[in-house]
Amino acid sequence: MAKVDISSVAVVMAMRAEAAPLIASLGLVEPDDQPAQLPFRWYEGRHRGVSVIVAVNGVDPRYDVDGIGTNPAVLNSWLVIERRRPDVVVSAGTAGGFTSKGGEVGDLYLSSGDLVFHDHRIPIAGFSDYGVGHYPCADVDHLARRLDAKTGVVSTGNSLDAPDVDLDLMAVNDASLKDMEAAAVAWVCWLSGTPFFAVKVIADLVDGPADTVEEFKLNLTMATGRLSAALVELVPLLAEHGLD
Amino acid sequence: MAKVDISSVAVVMAMRAEAAPLIASLGLVEPDDQPAQLPFRWYEGRHRGVSVIVAVNGVDPRYDVDGIGTNPAVLNSWLVIERRRPDVVVSAGTAGGFTSKGGEVGDLYLSSGDLVFHDHRIPIAGFSDYGVGHYPCADVDHLARRLDAKTGVVSTGNSLDAPDVDLDLMAVNDASLKDMEAAAVAWVCWLSGTPFFAVKVIADLVDGPADTVEEFKLNLTMATGRLSAALVELVPLLAEHGLD
Repeated sequence: MAKVDISSVAVVMAMRAEAAPLIASLGLVEPDDQPAQLPFRWYEGRHRGVSVIVAVNGVDPRYDVDGIGTNPAVLNSWLVIERRRPDVVVSAGTAGGFTSKGGEVGDLYLSSGDLVFHDHRIPIAGFSDYGVGHYPCADVDHLARRLDAKTGVVSTGNSLDAPDVDLDLMAVNDASLKDMEAAAVAWVCWLSGTPFFAVKVIADLVDGPADTVEEFKLNLTMATGRLSAALVELVPLLAEHGLD
Repeated sequence: MAKVDISSVAVVMAMRAEAAPLIASLGLVEPDDQPAQLPFRWYEGRHRGVSVIVAVNGVDPRYDVDGIGTNPAVLNSWLVIERRRPDVVVSAGTAGGFTSKGGEVGDLYLSSGDLVFHDHRIPIAGFSDYGVGHYPCADVDHLARRLDAKTGVVSTGNSLDAPDVDLDLMAVNDASLKDMEAAAVAWVCWLSGTPFFAVKVIADLVDGPADTVEEFKLNLTMATGRLSAALVELVPLLAEHGLD
């Protein structure tokens, strides 16, 4: 029996391209109470008896680019939790994977272990662990098995590249995935007592031979399609099996 | 004549030690509506006819350390703007300075130019500038002259250290100060249309010979004392002269 029953899910996503297939698949529509004067765009509906909201970080109007990174992830997550009180929040998107951890482009992962940052280096006692984050992840191994997904630690930072100073911390924290939002969403969930996990599809390999930007662009459509398909399957699994 | 009149000021600060002298000097007290279930702690009062709120990021209960960095800065700033609608928000604290820019330990700075990040590297057209931030700073040169403060660009990142990958971006953006919150507060202010600037006192020199952590610890009390004295002087100057 599940320890946490789920009847409402908030999915926080950074990029329009990541969210579009899911919004279309579930037939979600914009609510009347979009966050006023903020770039965030929400899409809502029901899927197999579950209330679903996809909260997209929206667009920076100055540069016409998606609001990737931790700052919009924090505020968008806070608002969707405050205004919708979802039973669980999911950080969903594409991510970098590691060949050294068995990752391949297109792989579906659910988060396990703590959510961590690899770009918060504060070498003072206490502050060091605070910087890394160590925010909790719900136990979703039972869902990963049903989705045929891998599981691994997600490490978050605000840069698309990965210099040695970041790679070293990802290695220390045993990261299988590198993203730009998950630990920030997890921090807000920890503050508010909301169960959290991440769903990520590998679009590029951090330790692979290809250029990250080119690999990311090449694989984005494939990865977001797989992500959407996984989330459509995940929602009824959450309703049926809950969180352990 | 000032372009923006100021009768209320919110000062967002990361560390208890940074905020304590200011709270004591102005005789601020905790309001009845502290943010519920969140670590942020607010202190309010009036000083020379101006409504003042000091919003401290509070403590991580797991490690008993101050909530430094951009995540708490974003959410604390958002809440204080939403609930108090201050005429101006000030990011105040200690910072790293640069001898190459004429900075010395103990120097008082007001921000000038854009607020930028040095740890948001996203090398894709459009995303690159978005990552750097470029959030606006109010014109406070007239206040800097009256406070005998220096002015310079503040660059924000979530690490206390400064590897080459961060130093390179600080140099590109002509940073005179390195801190861990200002650009995140500036982002929230930009979103909400709230005037913003930063007040920082140098506690360590990024390009100096001393170890950053030891220098920071050694100078923290001196720097927070100077910061508090400057803010006590700044509040009536804001009321008298406003923002240009």
